[in-house]
Amino acid sequence: MTPPTRLSWKDVRDEIHKAILSGRYGPGDRLPRDADIAEEMNCARSTVQRAMQDLSDSGLVDRRRKGGTRVRAEPVTRATLDIPITRREVEQRGGRYGYQLIRRVEETAPHSVLATFELTTPQPMQRIEALHFSDGRPYILEDRWVCPETVPEIRDLDLTSQSANEWLVLNKPYSRCDMRFFAITAEPQMAELLETEVGAALLVIERTTWIETAPITTVKAITAPGYRLLTTS
Amino acid sequence: MTPPTRLSWKDVRDEIHKAILSGRYGPGDRLPRDADIAEEMNCARSTVQRAMQDLSDSGLVDRRRKGGTRVRAEPVTRATLDIPITRREVEQRGGRYGYQLIRRVEETAPHSVLATFELTTPQPMQRIEALHFSDGRPYILEDRWVCPETVPEIRDLDLTSQSANEWLVLNKPYSRCDMRFFAITAEPQMAELLETEVGAALLVIERTTWIETAPITTVKAITAPGYRLLTTS
Repeated sequence: MTPPTRLSWKDVRDEIHKAILSGRYGPGDRLPRDADIAEEMNCARSTVQRAMQDLSDSGLVDRRRKGGTRVRAEPVTRATLDIPITRREVEQRGGRYGYQLIRRVEETAPHSVLATFELTTPQPMQRIEALHFSDGRPYILEDRWVCPETVPEIRDLDLTSQSANEWLVLNKPYSRCDMRFFAITAEPQMAELLETEVGAALLVIERTTWIETAPITTVKAITAPGYRLLTTS
Repeated sequence: MTPPTRLSWKDVRDEIHKAILSGRYGPGDRLPRDADIAEEMNCARSTVQRAMQDLSDSGLVDRRRKGGTRVRAEPVTRATLDIPITRREVEQRGGRYGYQLIRRVEETAPHSVLATFELTTPQPMQRIEALHFSDGRPYILEDRWVCPETVPEIRDLDLTSQSANEWLVLNKPYSRCDMRFFAITAEPQMAELLETEVGAALLVIERTTWIETAPITTVKAITAPGYRLLTTS
């Protein structure tokens, strides 16, 4: 006698996914209640909830507390981006990591930086510029502002051997992160640092983090030509 | 007498998050077992599980079936990107949407396209080029390949009024999506279509979708200068 098999949440998710892919439930359609699916599939309601959460995370269905679950009428292409610290990223791609601090000053932040932080009062910030290398070639040029009011430790940190990127990610967890992706052409100074031509197209990944409403840091990771950010889901 | 209040999964998540932010649990540390947290916080174990799932989704902790939950030793900056259909995106940003089919041919796909689809045998594909406008200005230049073996309907579709982007998203749910983000400089033809200068830096969002292992479509969304992709978490 074989033991009765219990469906995992992934089995349940795949069944519901198939029903949507087949067109049995179309855009905007309401799905059966979790409890009814659980009864039909002979599994726990929490198993159905976990499956629905995953389908919601991938942008396929919408969950509402009272309104149940619907197939998204206006589906989105949802992708999860995991951006590791740059040292790890270089190593994961098989490169030898290198790092160089270029410049570090404390000055009143320009209005554009204050606006990014959603601040209105001018205040001194640390500006840190550094280069990350892969196999000796420039990989990312980091243009960063750090708020010493939130991160007083930054003033005494030795940033010649460890990057602000690494130290902040490991020591300053954030509660909010805004990201922007855009393209720029390399200006002369940028081109020289990245060892490329003036006018080359560069992908910029800008990140700004806060703990509650206190700004931690905003950074433009200016990537070298040919850089590709990948995601699979 | 006030009724006893039950913690929601968000309350539980915020408590655990705070414990990590405060440094009580550092990178790599193991968190208490779900059951122990549930007992301590006087809530259901499924509430703790839901909270942990959220913390895992945001890249703060790692869940292992047997190994319990750990604070990520190598934290990542995790962001969720929701890319709506282009018409909706333009409308959500307050623009008037416009669309124009530029070219549509069926031809043997080049090796680069076959490689993107993870195919080895050459086969005919529909190549579709189209322009999306916002307030009459070019917004995204779409350079797309569709696999008619997976999507036979594509051959008879009128793509002069509805974009392949919109039709595919609404009618062909996928089970896998790969995305790539990179920057290119505008070539002469591209520059003319996007009404910009040759050499302008353009952000490209490339998406490739499959249903199981059958390729659906691969598309380069070549965005106009100044385009910014945003994400908040």
